Amino acid sequence: MDFLEEPIPGVGTYDDFNTIDWVREKSRDRDRHREITNKSKESTWALIHSVSDAFSGWLLMLLIGLLSGSLAGLIDISAHWMTDLKEGICTGGFWFNHEHCCWNSDHVTFEERDKCPEWNSWSQLIISTDEIKTILSGFIIRGYLGKWTLVIKTITLVLAVSSGLSLGKEGPLVHVACCCGNILCHCFNKYRKNEAKRREVLSAAAAAGVSVAFGAPIGGVLFSLEEVSYYFPLKTLWRSFFAALVAAFTLRSINPFGNSRLVLFYVEFHTPWHLFELVPFILLGIFGGLWGALFIRTNIAWCRKRKTTQLGKYPVIEVLVVTAITAILAFPNEYTRMSTSELISELFNDCGLLDSSKLCDYENRFNTSKAGELPDRPAGVGVYSAMWQLALTLILKIVITIFTFGMKIPSGLFIPSMAVGAIAGRLLGVGMEQLAYYHQEWTIFNSWCSQGADCITPGLYAMVGAAACLGGVTRMTVSLVVIMFELTGGLEYIVPLMAAAMTSKWVADALGREGIYDAHIRLNGYPFLEAKEEFAHKTLAMDVMKPRRNDPLLTVLTQDSMTVEDVETIISETTYSGFPVVVSRESQRLVGFVLRRDLIISIENARKKQDGVVSTSIIYFTEHSPPLPPYTPPTLKLRNILDLSPFTVTDLTPMEIVVDIFRKLGLRQCLVTHNGRLLGIITKKDVLKHIAQMANQDPDSILFN
Amino acid sequence: MDFLEEPIPGVGTYDDFNTIDWVREKSRDRDRHREITNKSKESTWALIHSVSDAFSGWLLMLLIGLLSGSLAGLIDISAHWMTDLKEGICTGGFWFNHEHCCWNSDHVTFEERDKCPEWNSWSQLIISTDEIKTILSGFIIRGYLGKWTLVIKTITLVLAVSSGLSLGKEGPLVHVACCCGNILCHCFNKYRKNEAKRREVLSAAAAAGVSVAFGAPIGGVLFSLEEVSYYFPLKTLWRSFFAALVAAFTLRSINPFGNSRLVLFYVEFHTPWHLFELVPFILLGIFGGLWGALFIRTNIAWCRKRKTTQLGKYPVIEVLVVTAITAILAFPNEYTRMSTSELISELFNDCGLLDSSKLCDYENRFNTSKAGELPDRPAGVGVYSAMWQLALTLILKIVITIFTFGMKIPSGLFIPSMAVGAIAGRLLGVGMEQLAYYHQEWTIFNSWCSQGADCITPGLYAMVGAAACLGGVTRMTVSLVVIMFELTGGLEYIVPLMAAAMTSKWVADALGREGIYDAHIRLNGYPFLEAKEEFAHKTLAMDVMKPRRNDPLLTVLTQDSMTVEDVETIISETTYSGFPVVVSRESQRLVGFVLRRDLIISIENARKKQDGVVSTSIIYFTEHSPPLPPYTPPTLKLRNILDLSPFTVTDLTPMEIVVDIFRKLGLRQCLVTHNGRLLGIITKKDVLKHIAQMANQDPDSILFN
Repeated sequence: MDFLEEPIPGVGTYDDFNTIDWVREKSRDRDRHREITNKSKESTWALIHSVSDAFSGWLLMLLIGLLSGSLAGLIDISAHWMTDLKEGICTGGFWFNHEHCCWNSDHVTFEERDKCPEWNSWSQLIISTDEIKTILSGFIIRGYLGKWTLVIKTITLVLAVSSGLSLGKEGPLVHVACCCGNILCHCFNKYRKNEAKRREVLSAAAAAGVSVAFGAPIGGVLFSLEEVSYYFPLKTLWRSFFAALVAAFTLRSINPFGNSRLVLFYVEFHTPWHLFELVPFILLGIFGGLWGALFIRTNIAWCRKRKTTQLGKYPVIEVLVVTAITAILAFPNEYTRMSTSELISELFNDCGLLDSSKLCDYENRFNTSKAGELPDRPAGVGVYSAMWQLALTLILKIVITIFTFGMKIPSGLFIPSMAVGAIAGRLLGVGMEQLAYYHQEWTIFNSWCSQGADCITPGLYAMVGAAACLGGVTRMTVSLVVIMFELTGGLEYIVPLMAAAMTSKWVADALGREGIYDAHIRLNGYPFLEAKEEFAHKTLAMDVMKPRRNDPLLTVLTQDSMTVEDVETIISETTYSGFPVVVSRESQRLVGFVLRRDLIISIENARKKQDGVVSTSIIYFTEHSPPLPPYTPPTLKLRNILDLSPFTVTDLTPMEIVVDIFRKLGLRQCLVTHNGRLLGIITKKDVLKHIAQMANQDPDSILFN
Repeated sequence: MDFLEEPIPGVGTYDDFNTIDWVREKSRDRDRHREITNKSKESTWALIHSVSDAFSGWLLMLLIGLLSGSLAGLIDISAHWMTDLKEGICTGGFWFNHEHCCWNSDHVTFEERDKCPEWNSWSQLIISTDEIKTILSGFIIRGYLGKWTLVIKTITLVLAVSSGLSLGKEGPLVHVACCCGNILCHCFNKYRKNEAKRREVLSAAAAAGVSVAFGAPIGGVLFSLEEVSYYFPLKTLWRSFFAALVAAFTLRSINPFGNSRLVLFYVEFHTPWHLFELVPFILLGIFGGLWGALFIRTNIAWCRKRKTTQLGKYPVIEVLVVTAITAILAFPNEYTRMSTSELISELFNDCGLLDSSKLCDYENRFNTSKAGELPDRPAGVGVYSAMWQLALTLILKIVITIFTFGMKIPSGLFIPSMAVGAIAGRLLGVGMEQLAYYHQEWTIFNSWCSQGADCITPGLYAMVGAAACLGGVTRMTVSLVVIMFELTGGLEYIVPLMAAAMTSKWVADALGREGIYDAHIRLNGYPFLEAKEEFAHKTLAMDVMKPRRNDPLLTVLTQDSMTVEDVETIISETTYSGFPVVVSRESQRLVGFVLRRDLIISIENARKKQDGVVSTSIIYFTEHSPPLPPYTPPTLKLRNILDLSPFTVTDLTPMEIVVDIFRKLGLRQCLVTHNGRLLGIITKKDVLKHIAQMANQDPDSILFN
């Protein structure tokens, strides 16, 4: 009775911008697997096929890891090279020379070069994490993860990163890795044909993307689990970890930064933290939460303005203007001029004896304590001027990031957010340090810091601040802490990081429940059924189902009394993507569910090939069709496309349970019955609309009604 | 229509050894939450109540973390003290003196003291992780997580750990933490009354348990996610992490080992690993897989023998005999005599200049290379004798661990498994090192190791071996790698660890699919629906449902035609835990589902309190009962205990989908319909039995048919 038994081309596939049916897809994969396993006993060849099929998942992970690691290395190296290009290309004799120097000889506007009109057509590719999140939840967007996307995204990412704009590369790298995953899926039968299996691969690829962006394989896996993925079976956990690790290892072998470390901002602090420091850490957490809430609100408001006003029609001009403003404002200040990663690196750094940066310009720099460590010292001129510059940098970064994220260039949010937090943290850290130095007599410092010892580490404050701001924007929790400590190698600082991350999440959640990715998903109106938020309203399935009380009755097919013509009329008069099949119109007892697409394909196919099927042929969904009287046209048996196990709930089922079923089983639709009679239908979009209505949001913002 | 509206005491609770209904429990919690939120607008007091309710989860986590951290510290300190006691109590003048020295003056049998007859009654508490796993999946075992268990477990754990038996403490610590969680749940209304919410807390407590056992908070959370928990919402992830961290932090503040490190076996290796070393690492992985498969098979066979033969009747004698044998065999060899944690620590250690252990007795010990590092050197006499002793230790540990795990004392498996792997790894590592020293001309060493440099680190091999063996036994994946690197602080060695863990899992899986916890769950016959294994057979719901083809019809209630007496007859004649309610026997159209326990309580209650309800009263499950003719006894309306949204599937639904629904939604039973008519019922136990049947296992081994 399986619809795969007589495969008609096209049956079981999806239209673009549709939601997949997880249950059906997984069931199909199990059928396929069963078939291969059964055959494997027959011949050696089949056995080899079965083994290779079992290992294809691992092979795929290996390839994804290798490919995304290599691409990340390539991107890093090219971006570096391009960044260097900005500094001195005209003095050298390269063949680029002409092209770029002609563009504009003014040093400042070199920044704009990356966004010159040649790339217009490429800049259609926008921020990605939220789209990927939606695709992983089972939505079909064709071409979004194709090879052209990969090529263009790779090139534009190099350009964007090297341009000095306030953006990070983790979002685009996740997209690049997902493209790799999607393209490689086409090489394996198992994954090419099954939308659910492919989404498992994409989850793993997302982990690999974060892994190469930060050299944080475990953090990447947790990020994929916590933030990105909709359906994350435990088997995928291990595979994702494998892919993430291979990617990180490949990147490390390429060694784009020349320091052969997996750890991006390696820090080594010499002093433990003190319990009283939890107070400033929590303050940083509050700052991070406020920043997160502010950023999400203003950024979403700006993006909405972009969508609804004339502004959205000139994405290239917008990019050029923002780049120009960034360049002009950023150039005078050394902290905004340097690349954001370098800035973070410098802010995290604990001042050693030999550090010559302005941030380490303390008085009595070379006095060491008895233990050989550097004690707290009064700040010198350099530190004070650095403080002012950092404060200006903070304001600039805050403003610029709000306008940059969401432009039509590939951009990530981690690095800018971390920079904002790191600056705030460093400022507070230096402040605390000076306070401890000048007010050693205060009880609080007295009891914790011994005279002339190193007591406060400003670099640690920067790290904690970075975690807080990142947490406020993304609302990540465990993955945030893990990423932070994979980034810095600081396993000992897990408590401060956690305290800040938790405060930040609470503060930000109090001001608005959505993280930035969810906010952008809602802005774009993708049908994403959030798995984190509990549905807390006391409505019933009957309040949500179609048809509503005053609507015409539900369109159903009967199992043995409709002609081809009747069905074709129904198909042409409605746009529903599927129809319930009942025993008879009078009894309304449910037999199964048939998809519109399968129905159209099957009828077309039958009309073409099956002898004698005409408009007056009767369609049978029953197992056996009755003997025909003479001179009637042959019947059309369609039981093979009928889903005999449609999900049903009763009309009195609370919507919270219905929402739970949709989430956990990944349903596309669910039928509603009352005392055994079919009453209506609830689709995923009905559920989403209802949730939006209950939250007093605009239900029409959900795309594709 | 909610059954909470008219609460009758006892309605909605469970009998012992029953499975909970996750959907119902969660729905009840949401009702409760909604009520509190609605009330919060009415008065300040209600608002405070609502806020405190929202924070009670966090408070609970904090308390669990504090309590389990403190208990772990207490256990560590006491166990240390007791271990020291073994060495010299009789020479001192303590009040213990008399008691213990009287027992036996022979040094060896001091070991037995811990198991002397006084503790007979306490030793009923057996290995725990698998029971906890079953409880988390929604099974009720009363008293298993009570305060007496906590007290006895804490005391016996101290005794068992200090006794020198081949066991670890992570299993019992998980149990101790879960007891803390369960006891603390009683202080919070929200958790006391809801079985599903309480299981969320227990998941977090399990994470806290692993966290304190190893000082590995992230590993603990992943362990709980991957191995222990059945239902793990993302909200719990963050809370578990919080509890795990508080517990680890508390333990660190107590500082039982006196080194103020969270990291248990801190290692610092000076050399990077080389790519060719992946070959020996993979060999270690294979060894780990073989050990895992061997251990699980022999241990389960031995435990089965214990269950089925006379042996099981003398648990105390068994413990005494095993302890005596362990003591006698362990004493002569210094590596078996030392505590297992110390042994692992020594095996992981990289030989420094000042190390005086036998394992570091190389020739030319004090020659350093130009870079100041210790080059590979020929092994001295000490190393060779250590190798022999370690080989003997390996064999002893393997044999003893098989007989120890599963005895009626609290025991964990991590430490013994890691010891086995660490010994094997160290042996291989020293072998490789000597090979590299004596055969520097071999291409493989030539191309990777420079002359006179430190090339092979035997300690790293020990670490990799430990991971491999732990992985083989538990089949953990990501959590294993994370625990290993939280244990050792070696973020750089993630690739070797992963390679070994992966090989080990593959090898072990090829020899038998189950990890040790699942094997013990099956041995004990607990109704645990494994979420990892895919159900791969092509059976349908109709093959599993009751009644079977030749059985009498399904016992149903009708919604408006049965008397109290009819229902009582049905209750007394059957043992089913619930009954479907249909419109009428003829139509068999489903209205709802009513639980036996609720039905009994309601009828009893009505007979006692409701005026005039007698045996001939008609029970109505309908919304409105029809007007009664005069002189008929009053009716009993029971719609409030009727579950109006029972889950249904069609008879043609593949069992793989049914299994999926049971797993993901945590169902207790599911009704089966055909074309809208009720046909049968499938319970969780039917599903488990069917899975066991399909896997050709003994279906009667599933407890509580």
